[in-house]
Amino acid sequence: MKTNLILINNDIVDAEEINVHPFNRGHQFGDGVYEIVPVYNGKAIHAEAHMENLFNALVQIKIPGFYMVEEMVEFTKRMIEAAEITDGLLYTQVTRGIGPYTLDFPEQCEPELIMQAVPLDREKLAELRKTGVSLMTVPDERAVKCDLNTLNRLPEILAKNKARVGKFYDALFVRDEKITETTEATFMVIKDEMLWTYPMKLGSVHDNVMRGLIKEKLAMTLDMQVIEKAFTKEFALNAEEAVLCGARCEIMPVVKIDRRMVGGGKPGPTASRLQAVFEEYIREHTK
Amino acid sequence: MKTNLILINNDIVDAEEINVHPFNRGHQFGDGVYEIVPVYNGKAIHAEAHMENLFNALVQIKIPGFYMVEEMVEFTKRMIEAAEITDGLLYTQVTRGIGPYTLDFPEQCEPELIMQAVPLDREKLAELRKTGVSLMTVPDERAVKCDLNTLNRLPEILAKNKARVGKFYDALFVRDEKITETTEATFMVIKDEMLWTYPMKLGSVHDNVMRGLIKEKLAMTLDMQVIEKAFTKEFALNAEEAVLCGARCEIMPVVKIDRRMVGGGKPGPTASRLQAVFEEYIREHTK
Repeated sequence: MKTNLILINNDIVDAEEINVHPFNRGHQFGDGVYEIVPVYNGKAIHAEAHMENLFNALVQIKIPGFYMVEEMVEFTKRMIEAAEITDGLLYTQVTRGIGPYTLDFPEQCEPELIMQAVPLDREKLAELRKTGVSLMTVPDERAVKCDLNTLNRLPEILAKNKARVGKFYDALFVRDEKITETTEATFMVIKDEMLWTYPMKLGSVHDNVMRGLIKEKLAMTLDMQVIEKAFTKEFALNAEEAVLCGARCEIMPVVKIDRRMVGGGKPGPTASRLQAVFEEYIREHTK
Repeated sequence: MKTNLILINNDIVDAEEINVHPFNRGHQFGDGVYEIVPVYNGKAIHAEAHMENLFNALVQIKIPGFYMVEEMVEFTKRMIEAAEITDGLLYTQVTRGIGPYTLDFPEQCEPELIMQAVPLDREKLAELRKTGVSLMTVPDERAVKCDLNTLNRLPEILAKNKARVGKFYDALFVRDEKITETTEATFMVIKDEMLWTYPMKLGSVHDNVMRGLIKEKLAMTLDMQVIEKAFTKEFALNAEEAVLCGARCEIMPVVKIDRRMVGGGKPGPTASRLQAVFEEYIREHTK
């Protein structure tokens, strides 16, 4: 995988050769959005859904849509080929572009689109899945609206670092006594053969494609329902199982929260069945 | 004023000539902090207090302090001279530097410091001061901790834009029914000859140098006390006067909030006295 390559506004060049302007609003204000597309067997999974997500986020933060969704999907293909991504992630970000230093954005701006290959060790994930992971709760002090993938990630960076320093896999955010999500994945618990997760409608969790895939396909395959309802840490600790779901971790069993056991402290059967139907889904879509 | 010049890690170059690496964490995550120093008559005001602020913010977000406060103060002098800033602002930002695309930051990173000149039309401010400005309240959906000047500014950008579209001077944030601040300045009301403003201790407003100057010097000069206590919009509407205080607006009378009058809808005497003692202070410090 060539992690040194960058697709920038349709050109593919070495990262060392391109110049991000110091007055780029991404660099000065975090004024932009991103999307992460998983790649398996050289193929982007749900590239269109991901690019639609990105397009929607651009509309929400009022960056003019300069490329069509179809063009952005085409970029993902070009970039996967050029960067020789067999298995990994494709990161895309769009910033509002260069402007004078004023908080309010100029009416005319030329957005900047960048894509890069991001390695992901899926063998290591498979190893981790055998034992499951531990999470550490952290107050969710992020901006109220977290549904969009914006470049404002400092609260997540600091929470992740806090968790890593404590030897946890990730931080688990808690807002108003309810668990929202981790810094990079959707959090779900299994109780009474149902999947529970924080509701989207409050705008306090990311609308990731994996969440949609579970809700609309994988859960049905397992004849399970997804309940979108906020719950406490106590509820999670008393659940049968807990899992993380996202492009960076696939389905990952959570066995401890704040050093207390979830579901006996071992990965449970539903996590493993969910991962199996996910893998089956990926196989079908990367033939 | 040479707005095209950039001081980057101690070198002064043309902005077009320098390369911000696309993998700079400022550009990808908003992983950095900034500070704005006002310049009058070619002199930075409170450069040391501002650089101490920046240094404190760096410590808070765990970016290693690579320059001493004194060195950063020295940079401000060099940059003001090179960019020929007579009257305006000096913007400084520090990002965590270049790293692989992972949320958690690498232990070893080389922070990047950038300074640039930002124009400020103080004659226009003086004109505005005669009529006062109108604000529009907006729910404060920023991250819970807003005391640091981080590069995560999207909620402020969108609030500012919303206000500007509605022909308001700025957005006035409201959190839990209490007024916090605007996107760029401290908000204060005058009631019973006291200055009221949102308390710092909750971490929901910026700790700007102007706020400190008013509290520790200017208010005393006017024999007024600063009351740090949260208050509602109704309280503000019933106050005698309201003002904005910050590097970008100095002391600016607020005459309307959501199209309702504050203090008779005209700039009041305290705003004007505060501005006068501020100007006197500046004159003394730029001799």
